[in-house]
Amino acid sequence: MSNDLPFNAKVNYPETKVMSGFMELLPEEQIEFDKIKATVLETYESFGFTALDTPVMERMDVLRAKDVGETATQIYEIAPRGEEKESKNGLRFDLTVPLARYVAEHFNDLSFPFRRCHISKVYRGERAQRGRFREFYQCDIDVIGHNALSIRYDAEIPSIIYQLFRKLDFGKFTIHVNNRKLLDGLLDSLGCVESAEKVLAVIDRIKKISPAEFVEQMKGLGLSDATIESLSRFFEIRGSNDEILQQLKGLGIDNKSYLEGLSELTMVVSFMKDLGVDDSYYRIDPVIVRGLSYYTGTVYETVLDDYSKIGSVCSGGRFDNLAENYTKEKLPGVGISIGLTRLFYQLREIGVIKCTKKTTADLIVVPKDDSNISTALNVSQSLRAAGFKVDALLEEFNLKKKFSYVTRKDTPFAIVIGDEEEKQNAVTLQHKSDDGSIMKQTVPLSELVSKMKSIIAEVS
Amino acid sequence: MSNDLPFNAKVNYPETKVMSGFMELLPEEQIEFDKIKATVLETYESFGFTALDTPVMERMDVLRAKDVGETATQIYEIAPRGEEKESKNGLRFDLTVPLARYVAEHFNDLSFPFRRCHISKVYRGERAQRGRFREFYQCDIDVIGHNALSIRYDAEIPSIIYQLFRKLDFGKFTIHVNNRKLLDGLLDSLGCVESAEKVLAVIDRIKKISPAEFVEQMKGLGLSDATIESLSRFFEIRGSNDEILQQLKGLGIDNKSYLEGLSELTMVVSFMKDLGVDDSYYRIDPVIVRGLSYYTGTVYETVLDDYSKIGSVCSGGRFDNLAENYTKEKLPGVGISIGLTRLFYQLREIGVIKCTKKTTADLIVVPKDDSNISTALNVSQSLRAAGFKVDALLEEFNLKKKFSYVTRKDTPFAIVIGDEEEKQNAVTLQHKSDDGSIMKQTVPLSELVSKMKSIIAEVS
Repeated sequence: MSNDLPFNAKVNYPETKVMSGFMELLPEEQIEFDKIKATVLETYESFGFTALDTPVMERMDVLRAKDVGETATQIYEIAPRGEEKESKNGLRFDLTVPLARYVAEHFNDLSFPFRRCHISKVYRGERAQRGRFREFYQCDIDVIGHNALSIRYDAEIPSIIYQLFRKLDFGKFTIHVNNRKLLDGLLDSLGCVESAEKVLAVIDRIKKISPAEFVEQMKGLGLSDATIESLSRFFEIRGSNDEILQQLKGLGIDNKSYLEGLSELTMVVSFMKDLGVDDSYYRIDPVIVRGLSYYTGTVYETVLDDYSKIGSVCSGGRFDNLAENYTKEKLPGVGISIGLTRLFYQLREIGVIKCTKKTTADLIVVPKDDSNISTALNVSQSLRAAGFKVDALLEEFNLKKKFSYVTRKDTPFAIVIGDEEEKQNAVTLQHKSDDGSIMKQTVPLSELVSKMKSIIAEVS
Repeated sequence: MSNDLPFNAKVNYPETKVMSGFMELLPEEQIEFDKIKATVLETYESFGFTALDTPVMERMDVLRAKDVGETATQIYEIAPRGEEKESKNGLRFDLTVPLARYVAEHFNDLSFPFRRCHISKVYRGERAQRGRFREFYQCDIDVIGHNALSIRYDAEIPSIIYQLFRKLDFGKFTIHVNNRKLLDGLLDSLGCVESAEKVLAVIDRIKKISPAEFVEQMKGLGLSDATIESLSRFFEIRGSNDEILQQLKGLGIDNKSYLEGLSELTMVVSFMKDLGVDDSYYRIDPVIVRGLSYYTGTVYETVLDDYSKIGSVCSGGRFDNLAENYTKEKLPGVGISIGLTRLFYQLREIGVIKCTKKTTADLIVVPKDDSNISTALNVSQSLRAAGFKVDALLEEFNLKKKFSYVTRKDTPFAIVIGDEEEKQNAVTLQHKSDDGSIMKQTVPLSELVSKMKSIIAEVS
């Protein structure tokens, strides 16, 4: 354990760089990340969602209960322990499987509709590439009903997205809303039920291909010209939200699923208005499919208008049965998820998120000399008691080094206490303004708390 | 994927019960747990600590860089992936190793003293037993210096414990404070350096054995009667904190380490007074050792006076070099850790923590009929805009089932909106008081926000 190694002795330290596919933030980045995470939680909670927290580790047969395609191959398994021959546990790859298991297990202790939010890390052993993460935060909300869940909740979800992204302030955004039943009904009415899955797979990529390519691929699936014509007409619908609803009605498709989808979508839009969602922030978009199987009704995607290349930053929808692999209870629901790690990474890369402040402290207390320590501790504590976050610099540095500490932390306020100040029963308050200039003023100890409160209220 | 199974069909669902050694909370428990966690973070931040977040997974050679005894056998390893022959990564077993790696890696981007807090889960594959957890929250703070760190930070730490446990309100508590150098110096002055480790191991258990057993075990280690006499005199010191300091001085031990320890302890106590720590909440306790090797100076243990059987609920101390296994930089520091999962579990078991409220929502909005939905959504949204957490019950339940939902959630406030209320441009505010009685009043829509603000301010 001795540290007295000869100078220049070669020591083999292990690699300390964060592993590829994992995000590790510097304090100034972490502060911004945590602010966003807090805004997400605060908004979710404002709609009555209660946070849950489940183990990061789950039984492998829980994780594998449902066919999740490629994701199944990405599960991090815990190495067998003791007598075990194979992995019994793995790390969760999303927050939906744990929710399904949780609701199945605790069914009798929950009251429905059950509103839960969950902001936590999930794990996928993906091939590492820029902007892809193996450990990342998901921010989920779901409302789960027992046997049934009113369509009204489908309207509440986009209003949550609306409130959240307004607060996050990443510029204008658009919530794309659709109902899967429209497309299912349309395909049904066109007699395309058998090729529906393949057709949907093409539609899922429709924004990435040209209209001509679309027609080509539909022909490849053996669809008739009349069918392709009908589909194209459906996808070419444009206009205001109300106009789109009118046109969807005007297509005159007499199919149960289609009409149900149309009625649901109409209600969703109507309740969204009651919830104060500005019409320019959402768009009925008949093209949105959200994968092929999980979602069964309303679906959502959210695009930041100025950074649309990022793709959807908040997606989700209505599902028929959350936990069919874990319980016989029927649990329909509606929810959304935000991949926060990727979103943060991308907005940071393009400079939308800026990180400078290296401490969450509101201010730093700087005693000039050792003789000022007692007063500095006193002052720090009264500021804390008044609700401020206070870093007291207690190190035995010279004054230059002390101020360099304050500068490096990028906190706007420093409270300096020297013999001169003590004599006057006062402190020197230094305030760095946005242009970098530093204003100094003497503040009597008796007025410090109220002074700081008024200044901070002014600044923020 | 079909759910149309014949009635009573046998389906093999995977086990949904949480795995042994993992804590999974119901919403009402999670709410209380999260409140405590938020208080810990808030208190840590009030002292200028900034939260960090590192990956749950670390390289095995990082986790194994230091000899951590039994803990090393408890590391959860990630099963080898692809071409790998052995586990390359594992789950962290504490937050100190990740901190050491982090500071080593990001040394040039940090400014020292570096104050970080970290509240997150760690993993240990312990033998499962009641009250022992394989996944548990640790709440850590550490101040890390470069080359040196002032003893003043050692006084700040117990003042943080003091502020925190006052806020947590688990009754009276005592912070036991000691300095390892006292005992090291005493053993040195008694010529016990060679048997020091064994002697310390006995002292580590001293509160669990009788004075006679202590003497017996010391004799077993070959210590002379005079030496044992001196040790006993040291351990029998009693009195107020100031008296204990006097007596430690009075022993007249002329040893460099002892005198250094005494001087440090005296300073720590003096600065704790400046930080407003009430004398009755801490005790200088020459017996506290905190294991055998890691800590090198000040050490802390915290005991809840009314629940002392739980043992120390918050411990830590001063260490010479945080990251010697990862960097050549010398990084002394001081810190503490709270094992929050175990603490919560134990206080919940004995009824100190009570859990009733099943939602974080401040109130539930209940539309009586479908015709009242629009107004209910409107009202909900204006309450949210005013900062309230609002659950709107949108389900198509009958009125009885709606009120049963409100009752089960145990929220004190419900806002009921029916045709009668709409006619009056008002709502019916139901307030359940602590004795369970429900008061009803009609509140005009225009006064609802201000009314709720004043009532909630009154209640809390």
